[in-house]
Amino acid sequence: MSIKVKIINDPVYGFIRFPERELMQLIDHAWFQRLRHIKQMGLAHLVYPGATHTRFHHSLGACHLMGKALDELQTKGVVISEEDRLAARIAALLHDVGHAPFSHSLEHTLVGISHEKISRLVMQKMDTETGGMLGRAMQIFDNACPQKYLNQLVSGQLDVDRMDYLNRDSFYTGVSEGVIGYDRILQMLTVRDNELAVEEKGVYSIEKFIIARYIMYWQVYLHKTVLSAELLLINILKRAKQLAGQGKELFATPALSYFLYRNISEKAFINEPEHLNQFCMLDDNDIMVSIKVWQTHEDKVLSTLCKMLILRKLYKVVYNPGSLARNLRQKKDEVKSALKIDDELIEYFVFSGVATNRSYHTSGDVIKIETKEAGVKKITEMEDSLVNQTLAHDIQKKYICFVPF
Amino acid sequence: MSIKVKIINDPVYGFIRFPERELMQLIDHAWFQRLRHIKQMGLAHLVYPGATHTRFHHSLGACHLMGKALDELQTKGVVISEEDRLAARIAALLHDVGHAPFSHSLEHTLVGISHEKISRLVMQKMDTETGGMLGRAMQIFDNACPQKYLNQLVSGQLDVDRMDYLNRDSFYTGVSEGVIGYDRILQMLTVRDNELAVEEKGVYSIEKFIIARYIMYWQVYLHKTVLSAELLLINILKRAKQLAGQGKELFATPALSYFLYRNISEKAFINEPEHLNQFCMLDDNDIMVSIKVWQTHEDKVLSTLCKMLILRKLYKVVYNPGSLARNLRQKKDEVKSALKIDDELIEYFVFSGVATNRSYHTSGDVIKIETKEAGVKKITEMEDSLVNQTLAHDIQKKYICFVPF
Amino acid sequence: MSIKVKIINDPVYGFIRFPERELMQLIDHAWFQRLRHIKQMGLAHLVYPGATHTRFHHSLGACHLMGKALDELQTKGVVISEEDRLAARIAALLHDVGHAPFSHSLEHTLVGISHEKISRLVMQKMDTETGGMLGRAMQIFDNACPQKYLNQLVSGQLDVDRMDYLNRDSFYTGVSEGVIGYDRILQMLTVRDNELAVEEKGVYSIEKFIIARYIMYWQVYLHKTVLSAELLLINILKRAKQLAGQGKELFATPALSYFLYRNISEKAFINEPEHLNQFCMLDDNDIMVSIKVWQTHEDKVLSTLCKMLILRKLYKVVYNPGSLARNLRQKKDEVKSALKIDDELIEYFVFSGVATNRSYHTSGDVIKIETKEAGVKKITEMEDSLVNQTLAHDIQKKYICFVPF
Amino acid sequence: MSIKVKIINDPVYGFIRFPERELMQLIDHAWFQRLRHIKQMGLAHLVYPGATHTRFHHSLGACHLMGKALDELQTKGVVISEEDRLAARIAALLHDVGHAPFSHSLEHTLVGISHEKISRLVMQKMDTETGGMLGRAMQIFDNACPQKYLNQLVSGQLDVDRMDYLNRDSFYTGVSEGVIGYDRILQMLTVRDNELAVEEKGVYSIEKFIIARYIMYWQVYLHKTVLSAELLLINILKRAKQLAGQGKELFATPALSYFLYRNISEKAFINEPEHLNQFCMLDDNDIMVSIKVWQTHEDKVLSTLCKMLILRKLYKVVYNPGSLARNLRQKKDEVKSALKIDDELIEYFVFSGVATNRSYHTSGDVIKIETKEAGVKKITEMEDSLVNQTLAHDIQKKYICFVPF
Repeated sequence: MSIKVKIINDPVYGFIRFPERELMQLIDHAWFQRLRHIKQMGLAHLVYPGATHTRFHHSLGACHLMGKALDELQTKGVVISEEDRLAARIAALLHDVGHAPFSHSLEHTLVGISHEKISRLVMQKMDTETGGMLGRAMQIFDNACPQKYLNQLVSGQLDVDRMDYLNRDSFYTGVSEGVIGYDRILQMLTVRDNELAVEEKGVYSIEKFIIARYIMYWQVYLHKTVLSAELLLINILKRAKQLAGQGKELFATPALSYFLYRNISEKAFINEPEHLNQFCMLDDNDIMVSIKVWQTHEDKVLSTLCKMLILRKLYKVVYNPGSLARNLRQKKDEVKSALKIDDELIEYFVFSGVATNRSYHTSGDVIKIETKEAGVKKITEMEDSLVNQTLAHDIQKKYICFVPF
Repeated sequence: MSIKVKIINDPVYGFIRFPERELMQLIDHAWFQRLRHIKQMGLAHLVYPGATHTRFHHSLGACHLMGKALDELQTKGVVISEEDRLAARIAALLHDVGHAPFSHSLEHTLVGISHEKISRLVMQKMDTETGGMLGRAMQIFDNACPQKYLNQLVSGQLDVDRMDYLNRDSFYTGVSEGVIGYDRILQMLTVRDNELAVEEKGVYSIEKFIIARYIMYWQVYLHKTVLSAELLLINILKRAKQLAGQGKELFATPALSYFLYRNISEKAFINEPEHLNQFCMLDDNDIMVSIKVWQTHEDKVLSTLCKMLILRKLYKVVYNPGSLARNLRQKKDEVKSALKIDDELIEYFVFSGVATNRSYHTSGDVIKIETKEAGVKKITEMEDSLVNQTLAHDIQKKYICFVPF
Repeated sequence: MSIKVKIINDPVYGFIRFPERELMQLIDHAWFQRLRHIKQMGLAHLVYPGATHTRFHHSLGACHLMGKALDELQTKGVVISEEDRLAARIAALLHDVGHAPFSHSLEHTLVGISHEKISRLVMQKMDTETGGMLGRAMQIFDNACPQKYLNQLVSGQLDVDRMDYLNRDSFYTGVSEGVIGYDRILQMLTVRDNELAVEEKGVYSIEKFIIARYIMYWQVYLHKTVLSAELLLINILKRAKQLAGQGKELFATPALSYFLYRNISEKAFINEPEHLNQFCMLDDNDIMVSIKVWQTHEDKVLSTLCKMLILRKLYKVVYNPGSLARNLRQKKDEVKSALKIDDELIEYFVFSGVATNRSYHTSGDVIKIETKEAGVKKITEMEDSLVNQTLAHDIQKKYICFVPF
Repeated sequence: MSIKVKIINDPVYGFIRFPERELMQLIDHAWFQRLRHIKQMGLAHLVYPGATHTRFHHSLGACHLMGKALDELQTKGVVISEEDRLAARIAALLHDVGHAPFSHSLEHTLVGISHEKISRLVMQKMDTETGGMLGRAMQIFDNACPQKYLNQLVSGQLDVDRMDYLNRDSFYTGVSEGVIGYDRILQMLTVRDNELAVEEKGVYSIEKFIIARYIMYWQVYLHKTVLSAELLLINILKRAKQLAGQGKELFATPALSYFLYRNISEKAFINEPEHLNQFCMLDDNDIMVSIKVWQTHEDKVLSTLCKMLILRKLYKVVYNPGSLARNLRQKKDEVKSALKIDDELIEYFVFSGVATNRSYHTSGDVIKIETKEAGVKKITEMEDSLVNQTLAHDIQKKYICFVPF
């Protein structure tokens, strides 16, 4: 009898395999299938039209890379049980299962709880449904597995999440600056004292990886037009919730309506299961169709912002805008007289903020290099390291954001 | 002063340019932006998870290839006016602007008029809005331009539409069988007697192109699971319209509601502008959110079909199923007793059909080869031509389609 | 202790591994290292400047694909012993070890024995040196292994040789028409009755593979300029041997000199080991440096031909040249009066020939498809098969070839 | 009449065009065709078997990129005459025409003059032959053209030479770390005050480019095994010249023989044209065939080193070898007693050295960024610049090198 193996064609990696029955069961679950309708890069496709790939695809990719990483470690003599292998693959598969629509953009707008915590709640619920299949995977997700390298591969500075999203996002955007040598990195992985380490000759690939992430942040994820679209989306939902709070009527899908008309704290979200049920009905499409309808809503703020998004007449974002305060005051005055809106609403049209990113953290779970001569060293301790001040500190860029009319 | 040129990063072609102000005006139009929310390959992403690319992106690509094709012809001495160049680019850009949600799947389910005719209506409306900018482009789209090669590049057996979608669909699905040597094909284009022709040494590239299209049809577009998903989607909308016709209440976005509760003929669609206005508010998202809600609709047929789609428990399609009639009768009996549904509804769950494709048409606007010795010949007249019976005739595959439970 | 695995970076496949000690021993052997200096595509780099890759690289690639193919068969339940696996990998690695300089071009010019037979002699010698390591590999190479699918993977119509060279040659030439979905083909392989077969859903990939081979022959391997360069090279060596036979002095490296001044029959080559020793000292470089020196040789035919090659002033090849005989006669007359050479030498400058290729053989070891409904069928028996007359018969193209001055 | 344009298929860039008659004349010249037989990366193919590409191909690529760069500048309003365009393309094409066999490895071993100076001599000679076609190109090559950006594009820190070799070398080695976004870089180029500058939004691409170069040096060009092979090659030639100087007989091709038996100073090379004539007859093949024969030379040093190269039993290189002096002394003693050779010859088998590279020079012709707010700035003056200490200073790595037996 031939053995049935699920094979998926991934343009990034070629054919990828999911031979484990348990994985297929989780992939087929409605709560995982939901990720098909959540774009990995939110609204970045407004700038990079190819970037329409989803959390679903990314999660499969992360799970695939986990398998490759463990294969590599096993050829180097690390003993990994079948159970641990499956658990680590599950943890990688489900690490993003709790994402809100549009990934990070709406994370704190719709509900007051982080996507990681929601992912954990979903895993808990799936565990119950499957009769306890996810115990070990949750331990890894909780960073509590004694085989620390498994935790690190799921969530660390060199995890399969980052490796997949850099690969995938650069593939779908066409931004070659984000390309990493993931296959070389995988082949350089090793384990020392139960922790992940990298062979010395892989140091250049790791530096390249950290730099690629730095570049992707500033060239893509925090690109001024991408940032502008995300800020617009957040403001739209903020305004919609505000109007809902005032009892105004708003077209919405049932699941979106549920969250517009409620303010749900982290504690409430955890304690009342219906919140999670409703959350798992929500995806990008609910948001987009509602915004489309809101273009003709009687509230001028809401309808104006919605039209801006649908017609792609986004805010203008200026990074490092010289005299911030003066610029801001002037813009506000211009917009107020142009739009004829009240003082307390001007913040929907003119505001300032700070974009922040750090490419590498030098404390906590750092990347370790296994040298031939001097044992395990931190990557920042290597001679001629490229991971310097610029990469290891927060880079903060102030911006002002305003409607361009 | 530096000249402002819009550059878009396309992972398929690299950077592509839109220096023409007129093109940018059309791209920015809400009716073109709508294509951002219509997937190029409908539900094929259920099989090929990377295939989430859109009609928007495809249309930009076709417009880009038109520019490259005309560049090539110009270096070969063909005189093309700036006006014609712009018109041909516009026609390529807008050739799909009238597509229904999910591209071909729902083409005849929501309204009784082809997407080409709707595209033409949209172009007409845009022409009025822009003070007559699209006259020449519409002539090309109508296959009525005296420079026949322009018509052929927009719609022919070797047009920029096919070249782009084969390229793009194979890129995003990861199916290497569809890769074509589009840059070589472009370089082999020439014009004879006002018609498009191909230099003799390009004959292998053209044959490869026709064969790639053949393979993409049967391996991807008509893949049994892709076909299954599309049939399911069509049946869902058919049932929803049926229920609407019976006056049943159905959640829907305003634009979808408009079409569920109306039967609009081609003639009516053309005569009453509001139909077009509403149609241009409709995209994939309207359909998906409604189906999600219909999972709990009281009509058992509708809710069952919707759950199947959302949970990806698709129909099973069997091509060339031996004794068709007997198979069908048996399946119907099984399903009727399992689902306990009436005779007249069994067709939603068990049915048969025929998938048809022809890779190359030997009559009408055939592909011509400019030979060195014998003047212009049809590609099928070339010695040792690969474009044989199999490719030049309709291939029809019967199938039965049924719920797998 | 960490396990030492030899990893090679192959731009075609990414990292490829050679964990077997025995394979590394053979790769390190001088007779295998010789392949580093034999270009895979002979003089095709004169037309496709990227095509400088070697038999060495191709042989590693074929060996790699053999490993992937056997991995696939094993996941499908085919039992393959470690010994057989190694033997099949060795046979793939060494299948071309007996190639003459410039691959096929000089195969019958320098010695009167085929490269396959020389490969077999080299394997025999290596077997003796290594104390009998190659017994099973030679059985496979001899098409005599009871596991017929191993023989077929080394030498058949769907062998790892063809898969690698189509991949590699299209990569290095940049000719996208030759790209094949090798990873998909590998995943579709199976074994029935000890013979290689392909799963039904892989049939399009196989057809694409056969067509890619067809196109590569006529667009690349038998491209008129590539053919021209090879004919020139053959004529140069023929003339040099002729002069050597007349006792004329010719600069040459020792190994080339050995073969210029001897006529060695197949029988002699097999019986006298020194012939093989000398042959294994010979590579492309010996030929090229000698030709460079012969540019100033006193023999006008030799020096003229050598200058043509070095300066890339090649013959002109005309395929299907209308009236062959008349054309030929006229060209000969022109050249004779231009070059002032004797009648018996004119054949070095003007001649005719036939280029022949068959893409698929319908008898012998045909490609078999495992269908779901009808058991194993020949690919040509499949409904709507593309492997038709054109592909399954010899295509012969007559040509005339002459100096262009 | 159709216009004849020479098109070459380059796997790195796709089809590249050489429409200029003058360029084709230079490409066809024997002295440029010689570059077909000089590998771009010397012996690096011993580690990266795909790296068999040539100076010929690289030179075509650099010339192609020059055309693209100038196209870009022209769309931005920079006025470039046809004459200047052609001259810049010629300078890019011929910038490496004076390279010795194996590129940099043998630069100072065979003759005492740099490859740039030989390139200049070749250009001078071609200028004379072509009746003064290269005047402007030589001015650019000499860094003396008033349009400084042309000089900088031929030879600067952001020149078409570097762009092509990073692209090409990473393509052929398969080392993804060297991939650069060359198309994005080209699109960011601009001219200010007659000098090359980069638009501000291109700053990440430039940093990526500098870092890619850094990584390629240490991971590829100065890879310990690549370095080892080059040192071995140099020592072989050094020994051969030494023996020739002692009047010993050595097999060699005529051109190599010429340089083995002479010591030619820069001055002599410039003054006596025959040296250049002979030099232009020399390529990689001359070296390789001679080394193959020298394996059996009576001089033990020479034959041992040659066997090492042919059999790929290279030196062992250890970077940063702890106590250098002690390690060296010990190795020398071991090797002396193993090989039984004289004291003065031990340096052929055991020695030390320093590998040096600087990725970016902060003085001289630095890379300039055109900012929106603050005019033209040096890249190192940009906020959060990644071009830091590590990249802008010489990195020196000491090594010891010894025979591993």
